[in-house]
Amino acid sequence: MNTIARYQPPDFNAAPLSQSPDARLAPAPADGIAPEQFHATSNFPEYVKLVSYGWVLAPESRMDAVLVADAGRLSVVEPRNLKQGDMVVVGRTENGEEGIYVYPDGFHRVKENGDKFTFRSRGTRETPFSRSYDDLYKVLRHDRDHGHIVWVLGPAVSFDKDSRESMQGLIEAGYCHGLMAGNALATHDLEASRFGTGLGQDIYSQHLVPLGHYHHLDVINEVRRTGSIQAYVDQEHVETGIIYACEKNNIPYVLAGSIRDDGPLPGVVGNAYDAQNAMREHARRATTVIAMATQLHSIAFGNMVPSYKIAADGTVRPVFFFIVDMSEFSADKLANRGSAQAQAILTNAQDFIVNLWNNLKQ
Amino acid sequence: MNTIARYQPPDFNAAPLSQSPDARLAPAPADGIAPEQFHATSNFPEYVKLVSYGWVLAPESRMDAVLVADAGRLSVVEPRNLKQGDMVVVGRTENGEEGIYVYPDGFHRVKENGDKFTFRSRGTRETPFSRSYDDLYKVLRHDRDHGHIVWVLGPAVSFDKDSRESMQGLIEAGYCHGLMAGNALATHDLEASRFGTGLGQDIYSQHLVPLGHYHHLDVINEVRRTGSIQAYVDQEHVETGIIYACEKNNIPYVLAGSIRDDGPLPGVVGNAYDAQNAMREHARRATTVIAMATQLHSIAFGNMVPSYKIAADGTVRPVFFFIVDMSEFSADKLANRGSAQAQAILTNAQDFIVNLWNNLKQ
Amino acid sequence: MNTIARYQPPDFNAAPLSQSPDARLAPAPADGIAPEQFHATSNFPEYVKLVSYGWVLAPESRMDAVLVADAGRLSVVEPRNLKQGDMVVVGRTENGEEGIYVYPDGFHRVKENGDKFTFRSRGTRETPFSRSYDDLYKVLRHDRDHGHIVWVLGPAVSFDKDSRESMQGLIEAGYCHGLMAGNALATHDLEASRFGTGLGQDIYSQHLVPLGHYHHLDVINEVRRTGSIQAYVDQEHVETGIIYACEKNNIPYVLAGSIRDDGPLPGVVGNAYDAQNAMREHARRATTVIAMATQLHSIAFGNMVPSYKIAADGTVRPVFFFIVDMSEFSADKLANRGSAQAQAILTNAQDFIVNLWNNLKQ
Amino acid sequence: MNTIARYQPPDFNAAPLSQSPDARLAPAPADGIAPEQFHATSNFPEYVKLVSYGWVLAPESRMDAVLVADAGRLSVVEPRNLKQGDMVVVGRTENGEEGIYVYPDGFHRVKENGDKFTFRSRGTRETPFSRSYDDLYKVLRHDRDHGHIVWVLGPAVSFDKDSRESMQGLIEAGYCHGLMAGNALATHDLEASRFGTGLGQDIYSQHLVPLGHYHHLDVINEVRRTGSIQAYVDQEHVETGIIYACEKNNIPYVLAGSIRDDGPLPGVVGNAYDAQNAMREHARRATTVIAMATQLHSIAFGNMVPSYKIAADGTVRPVFFFIVDMSEFSADKLANRGSAQAQAILTNAQDFIVNLWNNLKQ
Repeated sequence: MNTIARYQPPDFNAAPLSQSPDARLAPAPADGIAPEQFHATSNFPEYVKLVSYGWVLAPESRMDAVLVADAGRLSVVEPRNLKQGDMVVVGRTENGEEGIYVYPDGFHRVKENGDKFTFRSRGTRETPFSRSYDDLYKVLRHDRDHGHIVWVLGPAVSFDKDSRESMQGLIEAGYCHGLMAGNALATHDLEASRFGTGLGQDIYSQHLVPLGHYHHLDVINEVRRTGSIQAYVDQEHVETGIIYACEKNNIPYVLAGSIRDDGPLPGVVGNAYDAQNAMREHARRATTVIAMATQLHSIAFGNMVPSYKIAADGTVRPVFFFIVDMSEFSADKLANRGSAQAQAILTNAQDFIVNLWNNLKQ
Repeated sequence: MNTIARYQPPDFNAAPLSQSPDARLAPAPADGIAPEQFHATSNFPEYVKLVSYGWVLAPESRMDAVLVADAGRLSVVEPRNLKQGDMVVVGRTENGEEGIYVYPDGFHRVKENGDKFTFRSRGTRETPFSRSYDDLYKVLRHDRDHGHIVWVLGPAVSFDKDSRESMQGLIEAGYCHGLMAGNALATHDLEASRFGTGLGQDIYSQHLVPLGHYHHLDVINEVRRTGSIQAYVDQEHVETGIIYACEKNNIPYVLAGSIRDDGPLPGVVGNAYDAQNAMREHARRATTVIAMATQLHSIAFGNMVPSYKIAADGTVRPVFFFIVDMSEFSADKLANRGSAQAQAILTNAQDFIVNLWNNLKQ
Repeated sequence: MNTIARYQPPDFNAAPLSQSPDARLAPAPADGIAPEQFHATSNFPEYVKLVSYGWVLAPESRMDAVLVADAGRLSVVEPRNLKQGDMVVVGRTENGEEGIYVYPDGFHRVKENGDKFTFRSRGTRETPFSRSYDDLYKVLRHDRDHGHIVWVLGPAVSFDKDSRESMQGLIEAGYCHGLMAGNALATHDLEASRFGTGLGQDIYSQHLVPLGHYHHLDVINEVRRTGSIQAYVDQEHVETGIIYACEKNNIPYVLAGSIRDDGPLPGVVGNAYDAQNAMREHARRATTVIAMATQLHSIAFGNMVPSYKIAADGTVRPVFFFIVDMSEFSADKLANRGSAQAQAILTNAQDFIVNLWNNLKQ
Repeated sequence: MNTIARYQPPDFNAAPLSQSPDARLAPAPADGIAPEQFHATSNFPEYVKLVSYGWVLAPESRMDAVLVADAGRLSVVEPRNLKQGDMVVVGRTENGEEGIYVYPDGFHRVKENGDKFTFRSRGTRETPFSRSYDDLYKVLRHDRDHGHIVWVLGPAVSFDKDSRESMQGLIEAGYCHGLMAGNALATHDLEASRFGTGLGQDIYSQHLVPLGHYHHLDVINEVRRTGSIQAYVDQEHVETGIIYACEKNNIPYVLAGSIRDDGPLPGVVGNAYDAQNAMREHARRATTVIAMATQLHSIAFGNMVPSYKIAADGTVRPVFFFIVDMSEFSADKLANRGSAQAQAILTNAQDFIVNLWNNLKQ
């Protein structure tokens, strides 16, 4: 498993951590309300010194949640999910002064050169991505069998024949353990199964098909009449595509509703916070995430994903997060919203996925 | 009122419309399900020939809804809101062949030159916008008193001091009759009121404030504890900003939840389809829409807004839709999703709003 | 050769063309000056009716040049290259009224559907490109042996190991008959040969190499000392890369200087208009052009390339122009500057070229 | 003059600088060739310890030039401009080890907070620009009378009526001491003077004018026939626009040729390296630069501009460099090419310039 970096835990026996006080706790004053001076989590490993238990590593951390302590165990809880009386870690220092230690440096990091002046310190579309791809291939081959790969997909991947087939191939070959998307991805993928189009445009020839703007509406209406996506796939003999591959291979998917939706399809989670809860279940299990061509879902899921994962045997490994997008703005935005470990590959989702499958299918 | 184009209705006494059959109707087979071959609406004026009533113009049309006929009246209904037995217009022709007439040409359109070759046929950031601004000023001055101006805002407008003050000024001066936004706009606007920051960055100096990443979390927690935005504004003496201006001037706003939200704030509509219903109420009344710095809400609202509005006296006027965004992609995407009348101004939301207020406040 | 569309010439025996007068000619009043009312060319096929010769098709047309007639032959000449007394076609109509006929419709065009409303009428990053790739593969396989393929390259392709190797592979396999680029492409490609970096960043690992910002300066200095790129490649045993492949396979390349250049390398054409002349020689011969990751050179060459080519036997075929870029703005800009036949593939140049070579090398 | 930061020179009497050896010099082996291990300049202040003269500050430094020493004076010379035998500073360390000291910290810098985690560490279109504008207003008001303001303009500013008038206003009011641009800016500005269009599109109404694609060609032809821009402005009674304002106010401008040019206009510098030399003259004198809507010229000029300027009395002040562009990519690219002090304002050039003039004209 030498493709995955080793974790070096902090030395709690050395100063200053050896002298840290126990962390303070305060009860949640009401359901969904945090106590004053609550500590908010990052997605880095965070340790809290608990009375009579010592330093405890928070499991499955995420951005902007709080830490609830219960008998030597920590939970990372979104504030809206707090129950009155939950004992919440309070304190806003990060270096052990109040028994809280945020530890971003547990995995090996390459040291950059020490020149006062360098070119190319920012990632852009001109950054070389050969190594990013090779790393990604290795990680995916490893995590197919020893991890949990989550895809976060915008609808674009279903608009093109080759990329849709590649994504189907990746799912069928075991490279997807969970899919996060919206109503549009499922709708247009089923539209492609049924009509060979995406929003009325032929996914191969680019032709705008007569009355093609009815296609997705007809698909939605039919699925709604059938009662569920699964029933529709069975009854209508859907035999290609991303949703088909998930259904046939029992890959769980979460379709989160949005205000842009037509329909929605049955099974779409209309309430945003219920959808967050469903997505968080996958975020807790993820070892590698590939978020592609969707700013909304990428940032949403990026905020939920820890930068590390604790295995059953207690060892800690990094969680990889690849964001694939055309624009520096989207990648910067994810970085600005706190997903520090996110690695951007700036390209078209279509080429990305075709390239990926070309390599992994061999 | 010569700033607003006149509407020329079609001539139903001339062929071929004079020979159109009555439109066919079919009952919705179940709640939320449309009959086969349902007619889907555009946001252009659409006329349906109803038995014993003749040609009727659909009120408040929108993209991708269906038409329900009831005793000589048409309603434009999202398919999910259909009730079993509703009589739905069926037919997919547009030129009267089946009693349905889609009419995009009712308002005066400028004829372009007839050259085989022209430069600059596509709008980009290099398109001259002087006239767009002048048109916008005129329309807003008119619609402040004689129309219904709806703003659709992304959070960016609250991240900068001058633009936030300008938006507040526009609301206070009567240039906003309804505001569509998300949890983030309200959160960061209240963060600016309370801390002078946006996501922890000073909205004037650009400095990253120590522990600034707690600001929006603290605001959310405080508002949740207070119970409502209105109560928080009152009790905490919020006296600047966009939300403040709405509260003080009784301007209705819809905050639609999304999977990216922290919190959410009380009053945010968590269910996407409930949020759509709330937004649609404003879409029905809008005479001018300005959608700014939010692709999600812009496309969502763009799909709901008619291209025309029928006044109480039966006259028809255009509804203006301005989209302000930095990227051609966003503007193209709105065009590709069917919001034909949308006029793009490609610029930074900050400059746009400061410019606008500079002109209108005089 | 059924991958290449057939050309249907106009019918000059039918009205109105059968009644066209001969075109008027006027002498250039001075070197580099066109007569008043000069006719400016597009890159479409244009026919001129010449006294006693009848309708003549202009060879190798380009944007914004003039037509010089000499004894029944037409030349397409940039105004700055006119000689005093050259007889220039005058007239600004396009349909034969003055003996000038601009004919954009000679190659088969797919008819789009006739709906009043369609989604997705504009090309964006979400347009499906599977067919564009397949078309491109076919055309390149054909034109390798029966055409003239010109590449227009920005430096990005040399910044990444895999894409640089792919471009080298394409050249060595015969898929490049001419290369248009700038000083930067050649410099950074030679930097990669010598140091394995691009502007100091390792083209595989992304590491910023200590003192890497000297690499391109050292390469330029060494090549200048050696006297020519060819001598440098020989003496320094350069054995990888794009320039290497051109040198070893005798592929001509034009390096046009720009105000951004360091150096320049020997052989770079410093005068912009001399560079235009050199590029035009390739534009006249091109049957397929791939312009990638350079707005400046893409638009420059795009303006020079005809949309058609007349073979030795008089048959006419289309010239294909593919522009590969990350941004809709660049693609729109090319369209707005008149390169009507340009087909945009919106993606990262790295993935594009790797994909292309993966397919063509088989 | 408290709008301009004070400079704190290094302490050469303290270790380690007090123990630095004299810098080594080596002769240029031939014209245009640097000796091995030449030291390349940044645009930061750089000091060289010269035998019997001690530490000397390089004047008017720029990216990627070399330092020539002559009797206690340093010159910053582009390698191509070296003469055989020029004594060039060699050595590639930066902290005095070899008598070379690169000193980026002479001007006050704001310390950011010390949190391990922060949001919004990267500048994007969502960065608040209110302060950037206020800073810019102050600097321009100061430098109008006490500095040298250079504008670098792409053609977009001439495509819009209001922005063109604003730029004219700024020049007439003394806010421009030099203008760097290309053939296109001058051509389309003169096109707007003559026809009211930019590339054939009305700069106010956006209408595409019949035969408008001839406008810029006719303007070029007329100016060429007249012999010079100045003569054309006089004879044709040009009385509006950017070029007009420069001519009437004796503001020098450099028009650098490019391979995209039509024409060119008389006075355009066709050779890229002659154009660099002409631009460098302005770079040496600049105290504030505003580079707008042109990636090519912005990066070219950015590479030439020092980050500091030595006044006649020996005091040192910062040189400000504002880049105005729509895309993060352009701003990142400038940062990646080494223009460290460049401050990006991400917006449309039209709004920027209108806003600027609205404020400065008061």
